[in-house]
Amino acid sequence: MDIRATAAAAKAASLPLAAASGDAKDRALGAMAEGLRSSCQSILDANAKDLAAAEAEGLAAPLRKRLRFDGKKLDEVVTGIESLMALPDPVGLTERGMELDQGFELYRVSCPIGVIGVIFESRPDALVQISTLCLKSGNAALLKGGREAVHTNRALADVLVRAAAEAGMPAGWLQLLETRAEVTAMLALDDLIDLIIPRGSNAFVRFIMEHSSIPVLGHADGICHVYVDGAAELAKAVAITVDSKCQYVAVCNAAETLLVHEDVAAAFLPAVKEELEARGVSLVGCPRTAAIIPVGEATEEDWRTEYLDYRLSIRVVRDLAEAIDHINTYGSGHTDAIVTEDRGSAARFLNLVDAGNVFWNCSTRFSDGYRYGLGAEVGISTNKIHARGPVGLEGLLIYKWKLIGQGQTVAEYAQGQRRFTHRPLHRECPL
Amino acid sequence: MDIRATAAAAKAASLPLAAASGDAKDRALGAMAEGLRSSCQSILDANAKDLAAAEAEGLAAPLRKRLRFDGKKLDEVVTGIESLMALPDPVGLTERGMELDQGFELYRVSCPIGVIGVIFESRPDALVQISTLCLKSGNAALLKGGREAVHTNRALADVLVRAAAEAGMPAGWLQLLETRAEVTAMLALDDLIDLIIPRGSNAFVRFIMEHSSIPVLGHADGICHVYVDGAAELAKAVAITVDSKCQYVAVCNAAETLLVHEDVAAAFLPAVKEELEARGVSLVGCPRTAAIIPVGEATEEDWRTEYLDYRLSIRVVRDLAEAIDHINTYGSGHTDAIVTEDRGSAARFLNLVDAGNVFWNCSTRFSDGYRYGLGAEVGISTNKIHARGPVGLEGLLIYKWKLIGQGQTVAEYAQGQRRFTHRPLHRECPL
Repeated sequence: MDIRATAAAAKAASLPLAAASGDAKDRALGAMAEGLRSSCQSILDANAKDLAAAEAEGLAAPLRKRLRFDGKKLDEVVTGIESLMALPDPVGLTERGMELDQGFELYRVSCPIGVIGVIFESRPDALVQISTLCLKSGNAALLKGGREAVHTNRALADVLVRAAAEAGMPAGWLQLLETRAEVTAMLALDDLIDLIIPRGSNAFVRFIMEHSSIPVLGHADGICHVYVDGAAELAKAVAITVDSKCQYVAVCNAAETLLVHEDVAAAFLPAVKEELEARGVSLVGCPRTAAIIPVGEATEEDWRTEYLDYRLSIRVVRDLAEAIDHINTYGSGHTDAIVTEDRGSAARFLNLVDAGNVFWNCSTRFSDGYRYGLGAEVGISTNKIHARGPVGLEGLLIYKWKLIGQGQTVAEYAQGQRRFTHRPLHRECPL
Repeated sequence: MDIRATAAAAKAASLPLAAASGDAKDRALGAMAEGLRSSCQSILDANAKDLAAAEAEGLAAPLRKRLRFDGKKLDEVVTGIESLMALPDPVGLTERGMELDQGFELYRVSCPIGVIGVIFESRPDALVQISTLCLKSGNAALLKGGREAVHTNRALADVLVRAAAEAGMPAGWLQLLETRAEVTAMLALDDLIDLIIPRGSNAFVRFIMEHSSIPVLGHADGICHVYVDGAAELAKAVAITVDSKCQYVAVCNAAETLLVHEDVAAAFLPAVKEELEARGVSLVGCPRTAAIIPVGEATEEDWRTEYLDYRLSIRVVRDLAEAIDHINTYGSGHTDAIVTEDRGSAARFLNLVDAGNVFWNCSTRFSDGYRYGLGAEVGISTNKIHARGPVGLEGLLIYKWKLIGQGQTVAEYAQGQRRFTHRPLHRECPL
């Protein structure tokens, strides 16, 4: 496949798609949902092929589970499409209005980013979620799914592309890439593609970030911390630590390091150790931790490591400032939580920790688009521009400035014949 | 100078600065304004050195004019600081609130980006404008000004740094770089610097974009178009074309290409030619243009060229669609204007042209933060993420998600013991 031609077709489609009405996009979403239902059997057949291949290749059970696309998954993605249809069109919203002068009006209006390249992991339902989010937000999409899901992804994409085309969406707006080589080639096409969203292993995301001349939205590491303050309620702290570490270890918002204020370390550490070890978590710690509970020795490397496994590093700190400093030094800006009954300490932590998600008295695992009530998410960003934390529809939009005049020239204003009024306008952009 | 140590100091300062109160930042801004006034003479002396050197080196008169920093310029920058002080603190604003469950609240709150590297051209007043915008938005700044302005910039930065420090701002938040080598070294420090804003020649901005591992906000080219529609009022079209091209030719929002609908070309082109040539503009055009007025031949290269000079390329197009297609093919996404009395054509142009600024019946030269009423601007962005068009205070901010619980764990929700309410909250984040 000529990846430049593919991207050029997506770019060409992105322009009329940006101007498509909300109704037209919702009709296309409806057709896509309907298409998925009516092609259910061929999709399940394709998934059976992928599952058989995965079993033959000895893919681990949790990965095979993620790969499975059955009637229940189909119902879920169709429900997801229906919720998306129920949302108002996010494109064309007036974000700001300003009268520059009488009969001279400036509006900032939301619009799609353009062409988005998304690389996602093995779950085939992600293909439906991401492509429908892109359509609702008026963006063309180049998608690359996991190799294991190739038949399922092809079947899903065929259905979605056909249904959208029949509903009048421009050809080329959704295309599937199938090889790593195509992904690598895509990273150089900064004249055609506006944003890359990679989801996958740290190493892979880092590779994308280092090799892309296109802006990348996402996260490589999720080194999340729980800090148990001197004023923490210890039972709450144990429950939050256990949930943050163990509720699902293989994900980016699971905790990797536990920081404990020295005043409560002697009471808290034995209690949390018992609960963690009962769930199979192995512990490493600093010397002060080791003086209280038996743990392996944590190295400098441990503080920088996202285990994604039943393993936790522990450090006893002198005070809140040292905890904040540790997090800002070793963290990845993803999600960090403080457990404390002291409101002032909570405020300091939330304001001084430089992360996309900062939590008081709850588990780091809540850092997620669905739990945040954003609807579907395209990913979680640790970027510090554009979008941060869980990214839903809104992160797929930018704005343009529309200025509506009656022949105004800068010369008139520069020479003082006319003056700007700069009066805020509280109305919708008329075009 | 060890640029990594400089950037590390800025990063360290950025953390307390992000949590500084609006009052504290405004007091520092007041001290900076006062410092500039009381050190007026030493600043003017430094500027005299730069001006003498510029004259000795034979710097062109317009560049020497931009370099001049006199009592009037000082008054202007002080007035600018005072307007900035009058604005509300942009940090810590609640952008969104959501109850996840009873006693479990999520807020999206504005916060600074962190450390920003700004490379700006010869005008020394830009140093004051950019550093005060950074302070008001809670960002640390590494600034590199033009080589010609080295003494003036040093004098200004010394005053600003001292005044801010005395007013309690953290040391290291504002630092001056002085060599290109330092700028190049800065571009690799993606662990310490969050955003680069380059202002300067196309070649320089392009160099920065290609060599930075840090996100870059700005524009290389400003290839702006005026499209004169078949339904244009021709006198208005002449005035807008002349202003867009000639009001200030050396800037990014000046027009470089004129597109003319075939229905009005025969009437419009001779009229606009007369006005443009009277102002010394040389014209090149497509064969259809050349059939109506005598012009040089425009090559493919002309459509892609930002002249920044008294030169304009002209193309006759069949219809609105061809004009939009030309702009989306050759434009740089900066600013494009349509002249027409047909509201439907204006709407199509504004919605289908993929540029940060799309204008109806006014000059491209209005594309500017001051004219937009944004106050000072740090630059104009042709990026399609984060900020687009003229960028003021708001472009220097991002947000963090603050989640406030009472011990909630994900396990309770995953197991169905508790359910999310996801009810919008219309109140300020309490911390």
